[in-house]
Amino acid sequence: MGREGCIGILAGSGPLPAQVAAVAQAKGRKVFVVAFRDFADLALLAPYPHEVIRLAAAGEILNALKRHGCTDLVLIGPVRRPAWRDLRPDADGARILARLGRAIFSGDDGLLGAVVRVLGEEGFHVRGAHEFLEHATGHSGTLGKVRPDEQARQDIARGTTVLKAMAALDIGQGCVVQNGLVLAVEALEGTDAMLSRCGKLMQAGSGGVLVKMPKTGQDLRADMPTIGPATLENAARNGLRGVAFQPGVTLMTDPVHCVELADRYGLFLYGLTEEDLKEKA
Amino acid sequence: MGREGCIGILAGSGPLPAQVAAVAQAKGRKVFVVAFRDFADLALLAPYPHEVIRLAAAGEILNALKRHGCTDLVLIGPVRRPAWRDLRPDADGARILARLGRAIFSGDDGLLGAVVRVLGEEGFHVRGAHEFLEHATGHSGTLGKVRPDEQARQDIARGTTVLKAMAALDIGQGCVVQNGLVLAVEALEGTDAMLSRCGKLMQAGSGGVLVKMPKTGQDLRADMPTIGPATLENAARNGLRGVAFQPGVTLMTDPVHCVELADRYGLFLYGLTEEDLKEKA
Repeated sequence: MGREGCIGILAGSGPLPAQVAAVAQAKGRKVFVVAFRDFADLALLAPYPHEVIRLAAAGEILNALKRHGCTDLVLIGPVRRPAWRDLRPDADGARILARLGRAIFSGDDGLLGAVVRVLGEEGFHVRGAHEFLEHATGHSGTLGKVRPDEQARQDIARGTTVLKAMAALDIGQGCVVQNGLVLAVEALEGTDAMLSRCGKLMQAGSGGVLVKMPKTGQDLRADMPTIGPATLENAARNGLRGVAFQPGVTLMTDPVHCVELADRYGLFLYGLTEEDLKEKA
Repeated sequence: MGREGCIGILAGSGPLPAQVAAVAQAKGRKVFVVAFRDFADLALLAPYPHEVIRLAAAGEILNALKRHGCTDLVLIGPVRRPAWRDLRPDADGARILARLGRAIFSGDDGLLGAVVRVLGEEGFHVRGAHEFLEHATGHSGTLGKVRPDEQARQDIARGTTVLKAMAALDIGQGCVVQNGLVLAVEALEGTDAMLSRCGKLMQAGSGGVLVKMPKTGQDLRADMPTIGPATLENAARNGLRGVAFQPGVTLMTDPVHCVELADRYGLFLYGLTEEDLKEKA
């Protein structure tokens, strides 16, 4: 089983869910999309079989997935953790919330990891979106025209060290470093909010570097670091000089446009190499 | 020497420089204040012998200190790291900038530590402000009426663990934890900016906890974690339930008012105990 059944796509916001659906169909697989209400981009998902369902209506979601013969699942596209008062779980939702238990209060990793575990227990095979979007996970080295100089490479190394140290604590996936100085560390606010405060923290001299990496042990089936055109716009607006990411485990929404924007703004877009990642902590 | 000479106070912003001056005079010591232009509160410093001097006019500063027979120095009150274009060092300033070297580009610890080193080389004995403001460094346990409950104590423990891990990286002195989830980590933006983004990151259930601690190896003569009435106002405004700090090495501006505000807002104000600090990382 698993290889032959329909692929269920649990779709949050942004363009990636539709891209996964397109690739899966191109590979000859049947797809069915659960479009999370208030998050999923229905215009993009319209071409694919889908239903719009509330995030917390776990019973409805599971029934729809089973009704469409889904054997494999892909969780893709960001959703905000809903406030309790908005959650209103259905009966199955309440049962699943109970099974998630304390993970609900832990970091995103903990919660999403628990969701993947519960979906596995329900009989689904949960796949990573990067299995479908290989073309969008970048590669090592410089992607556009601008190359990181020596100072930028040192800042990338410092950022990598910082993220490794934070990894064990289930905190953030990003930081901004300028000339060895850590301007900002991402926790729950997300990369865009972090970038937004960097403009006024920036010191004289050349701009900072955004480094993004998944946390050690981060379940990529539940949550992957993502870079999109907005990341590059935001980096440029806040005076950064480049973005470094870990290829293979970072999703780029619209990679072609990302490279275009990097070139237009004179930013580097750099995939960390094996050697960068070996840099000692 | 040292014990008999005048105490030079290098005064940044806020009420603490004037408090140090008052305590030093009460102990029978002569004081002389270098009030940093654009930072120092001249109204509070008016009662004490002082000169207003630009931060980067190192030559002027050193001459004034020597002219007043200063043997000991206290650096107290925050200053923002100036932008290069505003720095305009005088001749001695340029010489000292050269001696600070790469430290200028390192974390605040690195830079301020180097400033303390250079002042030592110039023949001054640099003292910690907490030697004068012992009454304002708090004590272990609950300071006001509200005590941290079991969940809050767990969040304090998690925050302590996070800050210890960040300490080695010379990043921040604070973080906010809610029900085990790290909402925010302080880097260069400062505690107030970090608190300001926590309101909208807060999850359902009871509010978060601010934990503040100096970094391992942080030179307290150069920089101490500080809590003031504004910290408590800001914590309350953003839905936090309390503030934990390391007593003896944290300065409270106006401790009486801090406790009053904690009580008024129903926040705990908690000094970490030896046991809290031993909590394994």
